[in-house]
Amino acid sequence: MQGRWGAEDEAGARNLIDAEATLRGISSVRTGQVISLAIEIEAGKQGPVPPMRSPVQHFMTRDGGDYAAGLPEAYGFGFADDVIMLATHGTTHIDALSHVCRGGLIYNGFSSNTITSRGAKRCGIDKLAPIVTRGIFVDLASPETDPQGEAIRRDQLEAAIARTGVAPAPGDALLVRTGWLSAWRRGQGDVMRCTGLHHDCAELILEAGFALVAADNVAVEVLPSHDPSTAVPLHLKLTWENGVYLAELFDLEELAQSGQNAFQLVIAPLRIKGGVGSPITPIAIL
Amino acid sequence: MQGRWGAEDEAGARNLIDAEATLRGISSVRTGQVISLAIEIEAGKQGPVPPMRSPVQHFMTRDGGDYAAGLPEAYGFGFADDVIMLATHGTTHIDALSHVCRGGLIYNGFSSNTITSRGAKRCGIDKLAPIVTRGIFVDLASPETDPQGEAIRRDQLEAAIARTGVAPAPGDALLVRTGWLSAWRRGQGDVMRCTGLHHDCAELILEAGFALVAADNVAVEVLPSHDPSTAVPLHLKLTWENGVYLAELFDLEELAQSGQNAFQLVIAPLRIKGGVGSPITPIAIL
Amino acid sequence: MQGRWGAEDEAGARNLIDAEATLRGISSVRTGQVISLAIEIEAGKQGPVPPMRSPVQHFMTRDGGDYAAGLPEAYGFGFADDVIMLATHGTTHIDALSHVCRGGLIYNGFSSNTITSRGAKRCGIDKLAPIVTRGIFVDLASPETDPQGEAIRRDQLEAAIARTGVAPAPGDALLVRTGWLSAWRRGQGDVMRCTGLHHDCAELILEAGFALVAADNVAVEVLPSHDPSTAVPLHLKLTWENGVYLAELFDLEELAQSGQNAFQLVIAPLRIKGGVGSPITPIAIL
Amino acid sequence: MQGRWGAEDEAGARNLIDAEATLRGISSVRTGQVISLAIEIEAGKQGPVPPMRSPVQHFMTRDGGDYAAGLPEAYGFGFADDVIMLATHGTTHIDALSHVCRGGLIYNGFSSNTITSRGAKRCGIDKLAPIVTRGIFVDLASPETDPQGEAIRRDQLEAAIARTGVAPAPGDALLVRTGWLSAWRRGQGDVMRCTGLHHDCAELILEAGFALVAADNVAVEVLPSHDPSTAVPLHLKLTWENGVYLAELFDLEELAQSGQNAFQLVIAPLRIKGGVGSPITPIAIL
Repeated sequence: MQGRWGAEDEAGARNLIDAEATLRGISSVRTGQVISLAIEIEAGKQGPVPPMRSPVQHFMTRDGGDYAAGLPEAYGFGFADDVIMLATHGTTHIDALSHVCRGGLIYNGFSSNTITSRGAKRCGIDKLAPIVTRGIFVDLASPETDPQGEAIRRDQLEAAIARTGVAPAPGDALLVRTGWLSAWRRGQGDVMRCTGLHHDCAELILEAGFALVAADNVAVEVLPSHDPSTAVPLHLKLTWENGVYLAELFDLEELAQSGQNAFQLVIAPLRIKGGVGSPITPIAIL
Repeated sequence: MQGRWGAEDEAGARNLIDAEATLRGISSVRTGQVISLAIEIEAGKQGPVPPMRSPVQHFMTRDGGDYAAGLPEAYGFGFADDVIMLATHGTTHIDALSHVCRGGLIYNGFSSNTITSRGAKRCGIDKLAPIVTRGIFVDLASPETDPQGEAIRRDQLEAAIARTGVAPAPGDALLVRTGWLSAWRRGQGDVMRCTGLHHDCAELILEAGFALVAADNVAVEVLPSHDPSTAVPLHLKLTWENGVYLAELFDLEELAQSGQNAFQLVIAPLRIKGGVGSPITPIAIL
Repeated sequence: MQGRWGAEDEAGARNLIDAEATLRGISSVRTGQVISLAIEIEAGKQGPVPPMRSPVQHFMTRDGGDYAAGLPEAYGFGFADDVIMLATHGTTHIDALSHVCRGGLIYNGFSSNTITSRGAKRCGIDKLAPIVTRGIFVDLASPETDPQGEAIRRDQLEAAIARTGVAPAPGDALLVRTGWLSAWRRGQGDVMRCTGLHHDCAELILEAGFALVAADNVAVEVLPSHDPSTAVPLHLKLTWENGVYLAELFDLEELAQSGQNAFQLVIAPLRIKGGVGSPITPIAIL
Repeated sequence: MQGRWGAEDEAGARNLIDAEATLRGISSVRTGQVISLAIEIEAGKQGPVPPMRSPVQHFMTRDGGDYAAGLPEAYGFGFADDVIMLATHGTTHIDALSHVCRGGLIYNGFSSNTITSRGAKRCGIDKLAPIVTRGIFVDLASPETDPQGEAIRRDQLEAAIARTGVAPAPGDALLVRTGWLSAWRRGQGDVMRCTGLHHDCAELILEAGFALVAADNVAVEVLPSHDPSTAVPLHLKLTWENGVYLAELFDLEELAQSGQNAFQLVIAPLRIKGGVGSPITPIAIL
């Protein structure tokens, strides 16, 4: 599929989100209810992320305490200022197409050598325009199943999409609830062992033309992998080979309660030059 | 106006953005064109911000160079990871209601003592739900005027809004282009001297019921202030006294070219617990 | 004791380290052996510190991988660069006199209001000149005792000092091995529960005129405290009341093996303006 | 010279600093005066360093303002805590032997591929034991010469060393004042244009057996280089080829005033695992 959008393409399946897809999202809005799909960013807490990603740091560079300690409110006012430091994949986030590589290549055959200490020259998150499209939600969490390492197979996913009554169109986004995040919140989640999509779901996703797949777990796909050749077969098939975006650690609890399966989805990554991902606050407008 | 939404309110004018306002934004969409209003976040560059805010830092914690240097692509894949550190007010951003204080108080009469090294207990950016509403755009940049320190008066703003042909409704957002950012890009901008709104615009904004005012400059309002009693009269009147949100350093160039004055506006701050602002990628959907 | 070195003094017991004390350290040197007393600073590892202090972060801003990925060695050379971020009390360190306060005061009666988001205006680590003096080492670790929360009493400390055969003189530094760090390395250390000095040691330390007390534990003193009125009685008596420096997380294993109890001690804090502590690599020259 | 200390050596000329060299430093002490050779580390200030190295950041994670704002002094005390973030080469510092590479190699023929985002596996600053030796000081600043880009030639350096009356011995350290730092403080310094050693000084330094050369400028050597083949010929000849340490941005003003040319020098780098340099507070004991 490399070269589908040309040899210089760095946007991948974002190309599928044309004005028609954006308007399709708009048409899905019913009530005007706005739901945030982001988990909270809390300083010093590890959060539901692998330990290689350091905890968020949040520093106050000016605060109310400074005024309490006698700093004058100069020029007729006071203010508070702060600095945030976080792994771009350390909270609710979207992967850039430069996030995953194999055999020295990233998406569209660009060399992984384009990613150095100076950031990603190719397929950085700055190359991803905001995503505004229709979101389709499927809930595959079940009280009976353990959210630790269960694989969601293609037929399960296909049936769940069918149950929504919504026929996917190219450029749509798929949001999958596995139940892992709520298990993690109950103290039962293991970041290296998450229920998620089996790699046999890849073809279904590509055939439907989804531009993005998001889930309430660490990697969208099941961890550990059921593919003996790689730990992340879905990342390779979807992102690396086809430019489909993956986004993780979504909080889908409120959306699950709403009972509405199609809506306007908005994802606006920070425009970090050369970044390989971005923290986001995804929004569902119902 | 304190207490308008109750003594415990920490959301301020976000309360004006009800489902009706959100649907009004939806109704403004014509073509499905999506415009990002964020400036680029580039590591090591000061950007159009006061020097007290440190440059963005972007660190690669895993990159293509590591593999080029011989790190094996273990488990059948490689990846890139990064960390971003930035002042929350150091790029395109929205202020939390805890950002500004006076006389030891922030919005709604909460004590500024609620903001310490641990962050803002009251009116943190985590208390601000995503903003999805109608945006109204006015272009007050003119080739004749110097974008350094000119005050935009109430009558000018009123006339500009009238020219849009859109009647503002409560919960709308106002976006003002002053031309300062493009001057800064030409090397002519001074971060302490920006064309912006004169404080006599405050009443107009409050009467119209705008929930948010954003601009392509450092402080929305003119710098230096024309009010001898304070450097930021508009921040005090709008945010501090009335809970209206201010958002700054918007890139409004493409929007200005579009010729469309009403659109769906989406602003999704990061859910930083206790943060006093957030970097954002605001989106206009035309 | 406040005011012992004048109302404006910010150096405390560093004043005791005069040229005579420095020369006394020099005179203790026998063999020229140099021992580092610092633990290793390893990125991403919590280390033997309370969880409120975040793990060290170490970022490469230029590395060999960049050249492997094709960055040219411009101008006839290549280089590696890095950035380090750490809590000043998050590894082997020395406390500034501004580190501890009580009743709104720090050492010498200065207000704790002098310490704001801008750093410590009074008694910052920048006010501490390098320490070059005689160190006296006592080993109070014993195979029989548990290094978790045992209190070392005055008589034990006094006897241990006597056993060294060295008569302390004003401006000397006292180094105490409790065995806690080696227990921590064996996986048996609890950062909130450390063997250390009972507060009845304070008078002995003051009478002897020690300018600094260091140990291989988290707080020099025993944790939890044996004083019902405060968690850190030794910090209050020594640092806060008398300007004696405390330094923690020393690796005293190699020094213990040497069998030499008096030596030249050198501690050179980073000159962080307004810092309230500094990471250090203390050195014993035998 | 590669292999002088064996194929696995990562310490370079630190091997020259044996107990004899350390005792020679001790023997140079006369008065017991202690002089810090570090410049101040001030947050948010660029300092005398190239712009690719970001300004120091200093964050208070607990301060007196917090208590002023009402945080209780729990358990009978309060405290202040902070975090420091800095480029290891962004203030007074010492280079690790992994700092410079050429043709894909660092010191002793190790591959520069050993330096990745995970830090330097070979020749990291953690492989450098503290330096305690004799320092020899030469003052080559002159009121007549411009400290911008003048090259100090071998004969000048040789004469200056001779004037000290001290015969260098293997393992000694050489400290050179060029006057550049004081020019920078007067607002006349250019970080890319510094008076420093001409590369013809290299042989003299090697013949004398100096283990370290330090100066009051950015690179010890003159910038820009007088060698058309490389921008840093002295780094290549001394550090890369011979394992001699270079240390920069020393404040040598007070030492110059002292009139004493030989002294005990102590340099204690932070034990940063895999670091390619370290901020230091070098000490001269007179």
